[in-house]
Amino acid sequence: MSADHGVRRPDHAARRAALRNLLVENGVDALLVTDLVNIRYLTGFTGSNAALLVYSWDGAEDRTVVCTDGRYATQVGEQVPDLRAEIARACARRIIELAGEWQTGRVGFESHVMTVDQYHSLVDQGTGLELVSTRGLVEQLRTVKDDYEVDRLRAACAAADAALASLLDRGAIRPGRTERQVARELEWLMSEHGAAGVAFETIVAAGPNSAVPHHRPTDAVLAAGDFVKFDFGALVDGYHSDMTRTLVLGEPDDWQREIYDLVRGAQRAGREALKPGAGCAEVDVAARGVIEAAGHGDRFVHGLGHGVGLQIHEAPGIAKTGTGTLLPGMTVTVEPGVYFPGRGGVRIEDTLVVREGDPELLTLTTKDLIVVD
Amino acid sequence: MSADHGVRRPDHAARRAALRNLLVENGVDALLVTDLVNIRYLTGFTGSNAALLVYSWDGAEDRTVVCTDGRYATQVGEQVPDLRAEIARACARRIIELAGEWQTGRVGFESHVMTVDQYHSLVDQGTGLELVSTRGLVEQLRTVKDDYEVDRLRAACAAADAALASLLDRGAIRPGRTERQVARELEWLMSEHGAAGVAFETIVAAGPNSAVPHHRPTDAVLAAGDFVKFDFGALVDGYHSDMTRTLVLGEPDDWQREIYDLVRGAQRAGREALKPGAGCAEVDVAARGVIEAAGHGDRFVHGLGHGVGLQIHEAPGIAKTGTGTLLPGMTVTVEPGVYFPGRGGVRIEDTLVVREGDPELLTLTTKDLIVVD
Repeated sequence: MSADHGVRRPDHAARRAALRNLLVENGVDALLVTDLVNIRYLTGFTGSNAALLVYSWDGAEDRTVVCTDGRYATQVGEQVPDLRAEIARACARRIIELAGEWQTGRVGFESHVMTVDQYHSLVDQGTGLELVSTRGLVEQLRTVKDDYEVDRLRAACAAADAALASLLDRGAIRPGRTERQVARELEWLMSEHGAAGVAFETIVAAGPNSAVPHHRPTDAVLAAGDFVKFDFGALVDGYHSDMTRTLVLGEPDDWQREIYDLVRGAQRAGREALKPGAGCAEVDVAARGVIEAAGHGDRFVHGLGHGVGLQIHEAPGIAKTGTGTLLPGMTVTVEPGVYFPGRGGVRIEDTLVVREGDPELLTLTTKDLIVVD
Repeated sequence: MSADHGVRRPDHAARRAALRNLLVENGVDALLVTDLVNIRYLTGFTGSNAALLVYSWDGAEDRTVVCTDGRYATQVGEQVPDLRAEIARACARRIIELAGEWQTGRVGFESHVMTVDQYHSLVDQGTGLELVSTRGLVEQLRTVKDDYEVDRLRAACAAADAALASLLDRGAIRPGRTERQVARELEWLMSEHGAAGVAFETIVAAGPNSAVPHHRPTDAVLAAGDFVKFDFGALVDGYHSDMTRTLVLGEPDDWQREIYDLVRGAQRAGREALKPGAGCAEVDVAARGVIEAAGHGDRFVHGLGHGVGLQIHEAPGIAKTGTGTLLPGMTVTVEPGVYFPGRGGVRIEDTLVVREGDPELLTLTTKDLIVVD
């Protein structure tokens, strides 16, 4: 499949081939995948009940099996024409039955996802297989986005950018409106700009509420002089965008300019630290150091960022306690914030792709302080 | 707490008292609750990371402990002022540590929810507790709604009823509009009528798409002569409403009237069978029999209904394979459908509370065939 095709549709076979290497490294003959997001990533299937079996050896695609129930019999044929499909209600049990018939030795399962009851129901089948706990193998693959994924993330970020621009154009952010009204209009505008839905519950936080990191929109009314913090995202083909901008209604006070400039400087430092090979903790420190140097370290109460893709929060975590290093193609947020309880707060967040050299910025809305007259 | 107060706010202490009886029946000294919806039901806490310990003996409320992490330190104090709160990142581990210090013997855990990895991390603490698999205890309590819950479900159903009425009033359902546009407008109207969000992904399915039981809205355009199926719900204070109505655009053909009347009759039979003591399978059979008698049994391809409350799908299942019997206060859907692939389909669904005598209907939109001119 050419690179060009890769952008237009996902290359699931290439993803399964990459998984095989991890299976060999982890010493299992096959992996039972039960996490639905991982199944979507590896096959394209989006139903609500499924299991997947992937073998570790090359040329085993004939034995790659996706199982779902009768409700999705048509859908699985359309979405996964390239794989054998089984129809059964208890999908994981059917997969283990097949693996047993094929005399597979060690079958990995996703022990970070499978419940205790599901596990016992597989063991009770008595197939003679050895079930081996594995965790996060597909999630590890998912940290590095392929061309198709970056393309979809770009489209999701573009829908969010366009929606915020429209919201400003329409004069929708003004004293007298409630957080909830503004949030609802922003969500509607994202769908007008191509979003299939929202990536997460939209945050619109005005005045003192802007100091609450994860405030949910209320009937609080926007007033002149307020910071208004927007943290929102669009969902496009299963991919999530994530952006935060903090605006001010009318002329900002000095303390508002000061805190805004501080957060903006920290966010720039975080973006500049986003290089292949950099440690995840190191990137957090680069941004956090700017805020600490200004004496506000204790007001930056969360991590710097997180991976984003088929889930709104995925690996890697960019935080003081983060582990591992960045690789080209990882797509992460950089979102420092400084919060003064009862007064107001600022957070500025972008979604970016780690690249050789500078990262690629996907959220393009200006980070200059937007003053809404 | 008086019955009147019970409507205005949930009586979490009464729910925990009811749980104690189940713990005694199941022979455990305490239950570790890790399912977040169950925690919300038992305490009112809505954060995204929590664990709860409830002892089986009366007067043990002093040792009822809810644990969450630092992000929710303020919120847990506000939402759960009546219980001891612990702050820790690994909530279940902290709870088990406490239970160990208090020399608890047998601690139940929710084995249908807990992952294999979580379970092993608790076992590895070496507290000497006996961890006992329990499943669905809180879910069993949740099947019977208290006054507060019925009140919130009624409010959610009212928001959906009002939104559909507004949509019709506005002339928004007309040839030339897309399924997606109509769905978006309906969702916006629900929020105008008090919904905090949607209960699930809204279904608007026009013409042949109405024959797909769980169609997602597309850019398909509504046309004269179409069946238009709406399956949608509002979310109010965490409670979900669920209603389906099938309309026709312009004068219905004979086949449309025939299928509509058939489904309507089956739905009535299902509602009439909804009595305390009736078996869940029996209710399904009552409705299904009407459709089978008309020779269309193979076109009713799903169960008759399901419980609805803090989740859109919860126990009991009303299906041929359903087990158990109905109790007063259970809140369930009744939703038969008949589908002719490529042509069109009808589903009619209400949300109802099982009562002594007739059930209480919460979704009040007419079930007469609505002909949109």
